This record gives sequence, structure tokens and C-alpha cells, in this order.
Amino acid sequence: MALTPEELVKRVKQKVVPSGEERSRLAALVGKVVHSLQEAVAQRKVPLEVSVQGSYAKDTWLAGDVDIDVFLLADPSLNWDTVQTVVFEVSYALCKKFTARTRERYAEHPYLEAWIEGVRFNFVPGYLTKPGEWRTAVDRTPYHTEFVLRNLTEEQRDEVRVLKAFLKARRLYGAEIRFQGFSGYLCELLVAHYGGFWDVVRAMASWRYGEVVAFTPVDEDRIRRVFPEPLIVIDPVDPRRNVAAAVSDETFVRAIHAAMQLVEKPSLETFGWTAVRVAPVAVLDALRRRRTGIVGIFFDCANVVPDVLYGQLRRTLRILRAALEERGYTVLQTAMCGEEGRCMLVFELEALSKPAVRLLTGPPVSKPEAVHRFLERHLWEFAPQPVARGGRVFGVLPQPWRRASTIIEAIIRKSIEGRGPLPRYVTQGLRGGYKVLEGEDVIKEVRQRRCCLAELARLLGSA
Amino acid sequence: MALTPEELVKRVKQKVVPSGEERSRLAALVGKVVHSLQEAVAQRKVPLEVSVQGSYAKDTWLAGDVDIDVFLLADPSLNWDTVQTVVFEVSYALCKKFTARTRERYAEHPYLEAWIEGVRFNFVPGYLTKPGEWRTAVDRTPYHTEFVLRNLTEEQRDEVRVLKAFLKARRLYGAEIRFQGFSGYLCELLVAHYGGFWDVVRAMASWRYGEVVAFTPVDEDRIRRVFPEPLIVIDPVDPRRNVAAAVSDETFVRAIHAAMQLVEKPSLETFGWTAVRVAPVAVLDALRRRRTGIVGIFFDCANVVPDVLYGQLRRTLRILRAALEERGYTVLQTAMCGEEGRCMLVFELEALSKPAVRLLTGPPVSKPEAVHRFLERHLWEFAPQPVARGGRVFGVLPQPWRRASTIIEAIIRKSIEGRGPLPRYVTQGLRGGYKVLEGEDVIKEVRQRRCCLAELARLLGSA
Repeated sequence: MALTPEELVKRVKQKVVPSGEERSRLAALVGKVVHSLQEAVAQRKVPLEVSVQGSYAKDTWLAGDVDIDVFLLADPSLNWDTVQTVVFEVSYALCKKFTARTRERYAEHPYLEAWIEGVRFNFVPGYLTKPGEWRTAVDRTPYHTEFVLRNLTEEQRDEVRVLKAFLKARRLYGAEIRFQGFSGYLCELLVAHYGGFWDVVRAMASWRYGEVVAFTPVDEDRIRRVFPEPLIVIDPVDPRRNVAAAVSDETFVRAIHAAMQLVEKPSLETFGWTAVRVAPVAVLDALRRRRTGIVGIFFDCANVVPDVLYGQLRRTLRILRAALEERGYTVLQTAMCGEEGRCMLVFELEALSKPAVRLLTGPPVSKPEAVHRFLERHLWEFAPQPVARGGRVFGVLPQPWRRASTIIEAIIRKSIEGRGPLPRYVTQGLRGGYKVLEGEDVIKEVRQRRCCLAELARLLGSA
Repeated sequence: MALTPEELVKRVKQKVVPSGEERSRLAALVGKVVHSLQEAVAQRKVPLEVSVQGSYAKDTWLAGDVDIDVFLLADPSLNWDTVQTVVFEVSYALCKKFTARTRERYAEHPYLEAWIEGVRFNFVPGYLTKPGEWRTAVDRTPYHTEFVLRNLTEEQRDEVRVLKAFLKARRLYGAEIRFQGFSGYLCELLVAHYGGFWDVVRAMASWRYGEVVAFTPVDEDRIRRVFPEPLIVIDPVDPRRNVAAAVSDETFVRAIHAAMQLVEKPSLETFGWTAVRVAPVAVLDALRRRRTGIVGIFFDCANVVPDVLYGQLRRTLRILRAALEERGYTVLQTAMCGEEGRCMLVFELEALSKPAVRLLTGPPVSKPEAVHRFLERHLWEFAPQPVARGGRVFGVLPQPWRRASTIIEAIIRKSIEGRGPLPRYVTQGLRGGYKVLEGEDVIKEVRQRRCCLAELARLLGSA
């Protein structure tokens, strides 16, 4: 159902702006945790400042979907080992006190994830530095928070929420290498720059490759020479940084496409909220309706940092796709998924196998020398005879025949034996066992794996 | 096994040159028939000359494979109705006397076919005319016979036999529209012109489109403007006639190919005598090895003259092929067969069905205006989303999906209802019932039909 742009935003805000109840519950919890942490730090007598960052601090989180990022920022005089040790000690102690489930994680550097009263907290070590003197990748964050708080009105923060929800629904959200999409901070900057949700969407619909967004006047041509990415959003906190560096060509094109669609037909469906059904039966049905072939590769992978894992999965997709295309297969789309070390790679192909002959177009019959060369070149290859029609010579020629899955399996086996092109962690994972499945067997395999099924649903557009 | 050219010809001659026993048996039989016919004509007192023509008269028939063409040539003063009536009357009377099985047939005009003592005779009416004053298409024949007898030595007549055997084995023999190949007279002229079998084959291997063969000096460029065919052999008996008019582009190219192969590797296999196995199991095996899809159309057709039937079958193949190609199917080869009104048309395809989506290549990501137009043009068509890779935008788009056999059936149904493009006799035949079969079902269907199975064997090169 088409809605007015205003009506659509109103409907989305009803879902994504947190209620007063959610706000006060989180405020009480965060206050308690921060206070407790501050006390622990004070007891230790180390120069560490406890501060809340991220979407919670910036008041741009989506209702019911919040991480609380608690930064513990050290004086630059402290060495990094000490900082990490102290931050983890006080964080673990706090978690014990709150009987929280914890897990050490790693982004640019290690941090502690903890579930306290059903809410996810991240305890992140860093330094308190002046702009431009960053010591770690997170040291910019307090300045980002400050910029957003100073530059966005309350209304604009809700507009950020709508933008995030849109990009999330259209699978364009998340700066991790897995998604190669828009970060939360990028969304905030876009709203700050363009004004509101619709201003961003309308701008996005007319973005051009090498689009530059900046908060101070810049020489765009020079900027484009510095940053090779399709979208360049200069960080107001650090002009040497492109906040949109993670946005890939693919994401850029799909974002323009999604924005164009939303501008032309504002509706909850176009927004992306009702587009894809993830049930196995819907995915199966979509595959049958498309009449394409899918090949899936399944294996368990070393438990490495998601960015490394996804980087290697992406490279694997690229290598296998090239091998398939070299053999004449048309790869329509690809998908990947790697949660908890369980990996899936999927290719959507026009067909799962090829004939063992192919039609080669020869010269026109009226070009005798060319016909002669054509016949001579393939003298013993025709299968069985040359053909002429429409004034042209053709040849049916044999071609080495292999199923798509067989081509993939050969590369996997080679890599397992140490002579193949696949990257390290993927090869390690494959050594532990793998499956190469075709067609509906792929869907059967992922029936129980939510994230893989969602990837297939996206790929096949099951609706 | 490779042989020397001389050895190969020797081996073939052992099979195709008639024995003394065959010759004397035929001489006795033909003498008896002709004598009897002459007596009958004499009794009628009509000016009709009985003469033996064709490969028997020219001493160029293949051992064990001979028709005796008996021409009854009238004085030009007789009208055609009378000629036909008298010829059929005396021929029928003769056949009764010899208790022969008979059948009326039709080439350029009607004639009577009869089996006498196991040998096929054709009793053909015509006129005895001067060169250039031809009244019927067969009136040239006595002059052809005379030319061959005068211009070919005994040895050359055996060379003609080898040439015929080669073209027959490679399915290039027969000037009927069904074969679009080399006639017997054409073979005789080629040997007369080039000298012997190997001279013809070597010349053939280097033929060029618009090749001209003449027995008197000619202006080749002018000749090519008059005759549009790929091979032009001027009839020494009638310079306005191209003896090779039946040779199609396809036959011409395949003849060059076959000749090139034979020159490069003289062997019985290359000659074509051991190339194709026609057993259903061999054909099935060939289909499985090729991994292509075949679609066969089966129906019974009005019992029309073979040339008309094959002309219409050929046109039907052309119409259906165009329809398949329009829908994105790759037609590798086609075949047809129509014996005793039982017709088969076959398409060999890369695949029997296509996916319901296709990959459309868009512009490079670095051409922003083109990307924009591409996204706008297909805004709601992508299935589900545009793709970008290798610096280029792609779109997976839905395409109307229909099996190859469904496309064919739709055209057949339309034609049956009188709104379709298929030719008259074919449509008439289809009205009586038809089958459209796929893959191995086609082979099952023709298991019992020798001629169709041979066509499939040729198509798939089953060996």
C-alpha cells in the first residue's frame, strides 16, 4: 500500500523510536553500571575515564535493539598492556557482581561483551586523546558522539532511526566486511548533512559514483583522488578519514536502487519491512519459481574474527566464481554466511551443468577463405559435422564437460592438499570436512540455520 | 586405419563395382523387359522410343544398388495426355505379364515404379526433342547419358562409383529436396571434368563459395550473377542449367569438410563407411554423452510428393527454430524425416528449459549517468536486486519462462486452429494428432523407425 512520505515516516517512527518506558529502564540500568564501574576504577587509582558512547549515548538507537557501549578511556601516559589489563579486570569484576554472561570479542582491538539484565554491554578500552593524536581506532568515538549531540536536533535523531531502519531492512546496514554497508555514524552524518530522512533518501537516489559529502568546503576532484571508494563522507572529526569507506560498489548501487524505489513508491513494503519471507518453504518455492540452479558449500571454519572470516569467504567466492565462469557457467548471484564458524557459500547459476558440446559461430559462407580456415582449424573436432544456415557456417564442437559442483569440488580438494588457491582459514575449515550440495538440498541443509536461510531468502527474493 | 589413396580406392571398388555375374543377370533381365516393351509399343503403333537411361545405362551404378530407368520417349507431335496414357497402359500391361508389384510415383511428372524379379524399374514418359527444345524435365536425360558414355572411360566410370559411394556414406548424395545433395549426373560430370575420384576430392577440398565448373570457357563472374548457388556446374547439354542447383550451403560446406578430412586421412572410417552406428542403444548413449536436450515432433502427414513434403518440413523446422531462438534457446542442430507420410522433426538444444531469470549486463559503475538510467529503467524489475562486481553493474531480471516443448506446442496449436504459421500439409498432418517428446523419449519413439533413427544417429554422431 502506497503511503505519503510523511505517513510512512510516522508509521516507521512508531516502531523505531524507543518508548518512555524503554528509556527510563535503560537509563536506570546504565546509571547503575557506569556508577559501579567508576567506583571500581577509582579504587584502582588508574587514570581511566568511564563514558557511554555509541547509539545509546547519541540517542539514535532503534527501539528494542540497543547495545550499550561503555568506553574506558586511559590517559595517554599509560601503556597499552596496562590499559587492557585494568579494563578487563574491572569489567570482569563488574560482570561478576551483576552475574552477567560475558565473552571477549575483537574489533580493532579486544573488548568485553556482557549481557546484563537482558541488555548487551560492550566494555571497550581506549585512550583519551586530542583530535589527530589518536592512539587506537576507538579514540575518535567520543568526538563522534560529541559532534552528533551538538549537530542533531531531537527530531533529527528520530530521522536517523528511520534511516537506519530502512538500510537495515534493505540489508545495507553495517560497516563490517560482512555487510560492506552503512555504519550508524554514517547515518547520523547523512541526516546532519541533508536534514532529515527524506532529504537523505532523495539525495541517495541521485548519488553518482564518487559522491562527496563534507561539512566544510573541499576540492572534490582532489578528494576523489585520495579516496577510491564510490561514496566519500569526510569525517568532521578527522578529515583524513572516509566514514563511508566500507560501502562497496555493490552496496552503493543497491542503496541508490533502494532509494529510487522508495522515492517512487513510499510504502512499508518498499521500505523493506515486508519484502522477504525467510521460511524454508518460501525459499524453496522461490528457487522453484526462478528455475535457476544453486550450489552451496558448507563447512566449519576456525573461530577467527568475523572481519577476517568474511574477508576470506569473500575471496573464496571470487576465486570459485572465476573458475565457474571460465568453464562457461553464468553466475547470477552469490551469497555467504559465517556465524559461529559455520560457513556457507552459495552460487546461483543459470544451470547446474552444461552440455558436452557447444555451438561455435563460424564465418559467412560467402567468405571462402575464412570458411576454409574455419573448417581446417576444426577439421577433426566437429561433433559430428559443420552446419550452415542463414548464410553462415557453424560448428558443433565438443567441450570438456563438468558439473558446477564438480568444478568446485576439484578446487577444494586441491586446496586441501595444499596446492589450491583458497585462503588459509577457509582451507583449514575445509580440511575438517565439507559438503557441496545442489538445488533443493542446499535449502534442506540450512533449514535450521536462521542466518544462512536469510541469506538464501535475500538471494532468491522469496516473497 | 589409414590407407594410401590408391589402396583406399581399390578397397572401395571391391565393394561398389558390379561383378560379372550381376552385370549378366541385369543385362538379361533388362533385355527381356525392353524387348517386351518395344513389342507392346509397336503393336499400339504410337511413335514412342523405348530406351534405357540412368546409372545403369551409363554403367555407373553401385553394385547391388541399381534402379533401371526405362524411358518411353514420344515424338513431339503427340500431346502429353496421350503420351502419359499410352506409357502407363503399356507399362502396366508389362508389369502384369512379369507379375510385378507397382506404384505410381511423381517427380517432375508421374511415372511408374515396378519391382521385377527383385529389381526396381522406373517407366518414365517423356519427349524425344532436340537440345534446347525440351518439353519435359526428363527430355535432357538421353543427352546426359550420351555425354557420359562419350566422355568417361571405363576406368572413370568406376571412379564415379567410388565418388557416389563416398558422398552417400557422408550423407551428401541425392538431389532431392530431402537431401539437397549431389546427383548421380553431377558425380559423373565432376569425374569427367577433374579426371578421377581423388582429383575430384582434392578439388572439392579447396572449393570456394561460388565455385564454377564448366566444360567450355565461361565468364565466371557473369555465371555467378546468373546462378546464386554455392556450387555451379554448367550442364554441357544445356548451358542454362546448373547441375549442382540442389547443393545447399550446408551440403557444400559439409562436402568441403568431408573432402578435407579424406585428403588428410584416407581410411574407410573417414570415407564414412564405419562412422555412424544406428542402433537405438548407440543413439541413446550418444545423447547421454553429449548432455544436450532433444525435442522431437511426431505426426502423420498427407501422402504428398516427397519434394513437397520435405520442402514443408524444412520450412517448419525454420519457423520453429526462429521461435526457439527468439526465446533465448540455442539450437545446435536440426533433423527431419518423412517416410510413408510418417514425419519426425528434431531439434538438438543446449538445454530443454531456461531459468525464469536472466543476467543483464549494465554499465560500468564509473559511468554514473548510465548507471542511473540502468537502475531507473529496471527499477521494479530486478529479481531481487541489482548486483555490482568487477566495476560493473548487473541486473538479475525475470524473463517469461517456457519449456522448449511448450513453445513448440503453442505454435502447433495455433496452426491447428488456423491462426499459425506452419505450412499446409504439415498443419493437415498435425490435425490428425501429434506428439511433442523430449530427450530419451524421442529415441524410444523412433526405436522401430529405421529412417528416423538414422537421422538421429547422424545428428548425434553416434559411433
